[in-house]
Amino acid sequence: MIVDAGVTRLTPSEARARFRGGLRTPTAGWCSGWTQANLIAVPREQAYDVLLFAQRNPVPCPVLDVTEPGEVSCEIFDGDLRTDLPAYRIYRDGELVEETTDVTTAWRDDLVAFLIGCSFTFEAALLDAGVPVRHLEAGSNVPMYRTDRSCRDAGSIGGPLVVSMRPVPAALVATAVRVTSRYPAVHGAPVHVGDPSALGIADLSAPDFGDPVEIQAGEVPVFWGCGVTPQAAVIASRPPFAIAHAPGCMAITDARDSQFVIP
Amino acid sequence: MIVDAGVTRLTPSEARARFRGGLRTPTAGWCSGWTQANLIAVPREQAYDVLLFAQRNPVPCPVLDVTEPGEVSCEIFDGDLRTDLPAYRIYRDGELVEETTDVTTAWRDDLVAFLIGCSFTFEAALLDAGVPVRHLEAGSNVPMYRTDRSCRDAGSIGGPLVVSMRPVPAALVATAVRVTSRYPAVHGAPVHVGDPSALGIADLSAPDFGDPVEIQAGEVPVFWGCGVTPQAAVIASRPPFAIAHAPGCMAITDARDSQFVIP
Repeated sequence: MIVDAGVTRLTPSEARARFRGGLRTPTAGWCSGWTQANLIAVPREQAYDVLLFAQRNPVPCPVLDVTEPGEVSCEIFDGDLRTDLPAYRIYRDGELVEETTDVTTAWRDDLVAFLIGCSFTFEAALLDAGVPVRHLEAGSNVPMYRTDRSCRDAGSIGGPLVVSMRPVPAALVATAVRVTSRYPAVHGAPVHVGDPSALGIADLSAPDFGDPVEIQAGEVPVFWGCGVTPQAAVIASRPPFAIAHAPGCMAITDARDSQFVIP
Repeated sequence: MIVDAGVTRLTPSEARARFRGGLRTPTAGWCSGWTQANLIAVPREQAYDVLLFAQRNPVPCPVLDVTEPGEVSCEIFDGDLRTDLPAYRIYRDGELVEETTDVTTAWRDDLVAFLIGCSFTFEAALLDAGVPVRHLEAGSNVPMYRTDRSCRDAGSIGGPLVVSMRPVPAALVATAVRVTSRYPAVHGAPVHVGDPSALGIADLSAPDFGDPVEIQAGEVPVFWGCGVTPQAAVIASRPPFAIAHAPGCMAITDARDSQFVIP
């Protein structure tokens, strides 16, 4: 992705200070080697169902950390979850009511925040192994699709598996599988290789989230579980209140990508 | 372990039928290739803390499946959790009140059962890789120890890390690490290699659970996270009611050991 080289070398606390100061930007490419995470915060009353949904669907929903009710930091995030992301979305009864850069006043004492892994974590390893990552080359967001596969329900929470897609040259598909298999805590191996229609995806050029990418001759579409899955399911269950990060504006954590690889 | 070869070849449903019929026996060596699991069931009121404790301590507490409240089967266990284990322990306010082979009458509509992985799953892989497993050679239970390392608390639940120990020839320690690293969903790589005093273990010949094993010249004690950890922590938190399997008398699931290996 086309990112100022300066921000790739920032520490998480330096990056968070900029966001706390009001900078609003997608975080792709920021803080190389540090793990970025999806945020979804719900009242304690809904927290068991969210955690159980993640446990039952670990490929799309890898939980990296969970806060105590009302707390705004946790072991892997030594900042303030209310201010230190570039942007947030606030939901009431499942409806988006506000997008903002600071949720200090909206935060509630009974909120439990979940930090959920994202596939940024294994993209550097794909590049290192010689597997091109098209959306990084194009400077765009990864394309994501709702599939016709249902996740396992948990209480009030259910929804379809959402996948991200990367086109991979046929000769490198096995390499891509092998490399990402080593990251089971951040989506791991692909869930599907090839034919998108088998997942109920009608048109790869029209993703449900993110941007479309070109699939070149000799490339195969490869699909991974996507961290949008739990947020989409939680919001669809219409909790009375929820706060999530705005798309692309992730939580930059104090965990290292290397913590999530199997040697 | 010295086990009738016949039982190693039983299917999970055949084995469960024998236990349902009243057979009481340790399950080590039963149903080769099928995953065995620890059982801990608590009221729904305590279930979030148990699930969060497991999420925060994934090495000793790998959750394989969770039932709906009151249900007695789940995706990986197509039997009756109240009758299909060889033996159970019933706890009230953290005190053991009964050990029995059938908990049908004791089961409650609000119970949530957790099936938690056990290191039996990777022992076949160790043997395949040429790493001897002493307690299997000796026909005894694996030795387990409380350590001086605390797990991360979750609500009312906290306690020490419990580890299992296997003596490994020095030249094979790296192999043992490599092989078990590929099973992150069932304790994964060792948490410690060598000096037991660094874990607060005073005497390897006096394990807190299971049986002691001989450490031969040239062998190093290697320690893995142990599935006794969550049960010990849950019971120590004195929930009003809990049901667990009796030591060594595991739930034999319909999951395959091969489901938990990273290729």
